[in-house]
Amino acid sequence: MTQLGTTLDLDDLLVIREDNKESGVVTLTLNQPKQFNALSVEVLSAMQAELDNIAQDDTIRVVVIQATGKAFCAGHNLKQMRAHSDAAFHRALFQQCSKMMLTINHMPQVVIAKVQGIATAAGCQLVAACDLAVAADNAKFATSGINVGLFCSTPAVAVSRNLPRKQAFEMLITGEFIDAHTALQYGLINRVTPAEQLNQTLQSLITAITTKSPMAVKTGKDMFYKQLGMSVEDAYDYASEVMTDNMMADDVVKGLMHLLRNAKQYGKCANSYNNNHFIA
Amino acid sequence: MTQLGTTLDLDDLLVIREDNKESGVVTLTLNQPKQFNALSVEVLSAMQAELDNIAQDDTIRVVVIQATGKAFCAGHNLKQMRAHSDAAFHRALFQQCSKMMLTINHMPQVVIAKVQGIATAAGCQLVAACDLAVAADNAKFATSGINVGLFCSTPAVAVSRNLPRKQAFEMLITGEFIDAHTALQYGLINRVTPAEQLNQTLQSLITAITTKSPMAVKTGKDMFYKQLGMSVEDAYDYASEVMTDNMMADDVVKGLMHLLRNAKQYGKCANSYNNNHFIA
Amino acid sequence: MTQLGTTLDLDDLLVIREDNKESGVVTLTLNQPKQFNALSVEVLSAMQAELDNIAQDDTIRVVVIQATGKAFCAGHNLKQMRAHSDAAFHRALFQQCSKMMLTINHMPQVVIAKVQGIATAAGCQLVAACDLAVAADNAKFATSGINVGLFCSTPAVAVSRNLPRKQAFEMLITGEFIDAHTALQYGLINRVTPAEQLNQTLQSLITAITTKSPMAVKTGKDMFYKQLGMSVEDAYDYASEVMTDNMMADDVVKGLMHLLRNAKQYGKCANSYNNNHFIA
Repeated sequence: MTQLGTTLDLDDLLVIREDNKESGVVTLTLNQPKQFNALSVEVLSAMQAELDNIAQDDTIRVVVIQATGKAFCAGHNLKQMRAHSDAAFHRALFQQCSKMMLTINHMPQVVIAKVQGIATAAGCQLVAACDLAVAADNAKFATSGINVGLFCSTPAVAVSRNLPRKQAFEMLITGEFIDAHTALQYGLINRVTPAEQLNQTLQSLITAITTKSPMAVKTGKDMFYKQLGMSVEDAYDYASEVMTDNMMADDVVKGLMHLLRNAKQYGKCANSYNNNHFIA
Repeated sequence: MTQLGTTLDLDDLLVIREDNKESGVVTLTLNQPKQFNALSVEVLSAMQAELDNIAQDDTIRVVVIQATGKAFCAGHNLKQMRAHSDAAFHRALFQQCSKMMLTINHMPQVVIAKVQGIATAAGCQLVAACDLAVAADNAKFATSGINVGLFCSTPAVAVSRNLPRKQAFEMLITGEFIDAHTALQYGLINRVTPAEQLNQTLQSLITAITTKSPMAVKTGKDMFYKQLGMSVEDAYDYASEVMTDNMMADDVVKGLMHLLRNAKQYGKCANSYNNNHFIA
Repeated sequence: MTQLGTTLDLDDLLVIREDNKESGVVTLTLNQPKQFNALSVEVLSAMQAELDNIAQDDTIRVVVIQATGKAFCAGHNLKQMRAHSDAAFHRALFQQCSKMMLTINHMPQVVIAKVQGIATAAGCQLVAACDLAVAADNAKFATSGINVGLFCSTPAVAVSRNLPRKQAFEMLITGEFIDAHTALQYGLINRVTPAEQLNQTLQSLITAITTKSPMAVKTGKDMFYKQLGMSVEDAYDYASEVMTDNMMADDVVKGLMHLLRNAKQYGKCANSYNNNHFIA
């Protein structure tokens, strides 16, 4: 169940990994509540190791990133940062953090942030960098580096690719908190729910993904991000190739056959329109 | 009134074309309600032929794409797709479909989707690809290919250029339906209205366009999409040239003269501020 | 207090400049209410001169663009435009206007539009081009050039970089007004408030910025716009360099030391989590 520690004392682990082999879901829990789950060099290394390991494992479908304590993640560890006065340390830190965020984008699994408390600076970036995010209605979000004179430049990359421009700039330049409902409205997250229903909301999202073809999910996540930066013409050329390859896969043949035989394996479609003229 | 059939039996037509010569509006109606208006090769060909024809006709200002029956459009015809096992067929199909979607973007007329029912997969893409969209409040939208193991890659191109990133990804990776109000909030459509007022809502949008200068609408649609992918600096250079050319046109000279003489021909401006200091 | 006029009669000034030396805030007031604060060649020149001057002044932190009278800004001066029939005049005008809009983006100060009335055409563009915008709830917005046969091509550049695609296209192609609440929902502005609270709302936004490190705000605004057009990978590389440089600055050292000593100088962070494990 845990892979980072050499003892069984979970309290000593920076990041707790829990594998649900049956469902193909891995949960990574940031586990330094007293440090507000800061992304220290050590935590980033632990996260990177887990994500790299997961990325190679075809049996894993979904990764949940969550946290213990009151804060989801309050960004970098400022105490650690202050202890280093050389640019080389900080450059390496920001590059390490950026690499971790990009790994979330590049890995084949769908990564979901489960936000139970405040998410600030690189913690807010972590939410933005995940493919999907659910939050308790008492969660709050800020890119608060500006409050200590450090503009959240690397968080800006992720946040400005989730939010409308003026809203992203406002968060970054004021450092002020937005609540979970505002975060939903701005596009930073996908679901808001009372804290006591957060697990249930998360689970329904997970189930919506794990019941789908592994190949289609993997293909889809990869092509989704790749085509975003293309011209619409290039994107269609690329998407047509991807979809042709996807169509040739066994999963689709099976999926279509099931569907056309009124099977319900692949979800709601068949339930809604179970006749052999159905088109999707 | 109909141009695709050789008989007068509308039921035989894949796509019904109705021209309102007076208003300059053409309505294209997907007409296979029993097939949920699937975009088969034949339907795509019929649509492409109509759109290509319309694109050459300066007297046409607005195109409405609507559908008969309970569904607006449920995407590709899976039965037809299953009948072909070769990649060449599927590649050609996706390219044909992408070409049709791009034609909507590239043609000089404003294209409006009128969505009265479900719009799934390439049907949801069709809504996203249109310049504008109005929907009945019982309409529903999904990129549901993932339900049969086929990620909606080509729909992703259009949907991700309408919706915020996380919301687009959620639709594509879960295949779940969103209702019309959510679609409005996400930016997939422009108007939601009770079904019985859908025609009226559509008509007010059409009138807002057909009362404008044909040259300005054509110029505007073309420049709007072209500048989206440019840097802001390049976009301003380009826009300044377009606007200068636009300014030199007879329509503008007339428009300004009318306006400055308190004319109401070109709409609300003159009504609101009818004095010769008006600036727009 | 005023720098454009040679007399003390404010009514003669096209643009009134007021400097609050203490807070580092400059207010530029469009001052032709009878012309609905149209952006004539002369007004654009006056604005450009002020913005260029401000951009060189490190003591200025925030610029507010506001207007006198009922209209915020109704775009170009159509009477002046009609008086010129040569393309050269119009090209120069649109380039001059675009340059002014880009100056707002490129200058180190945060520029906030305070919108008390209608903002149409290039006036709506001005709101979109500002970094932030607050509006009274009776403000209205339109890209209304289409009403006189002149598609708002240069406004389209700014508006389409603030709003979702379909909503931007609708505004541009119909020329219809949206109210302030809709503008907020679309991302065109940051705050809506009753007219009598507009100053207070503006002030709270200003204070949220002027209490931050000048270097961090300047660095942040510059990097924010630069990284928007990059691939996410390039953006992270760039952001890591910017953040490293930012980290080396005296302001940050001071900010962190204050924070870690429970100081409250840099805002809410310290108030919320005043212990030496705080991470931001």
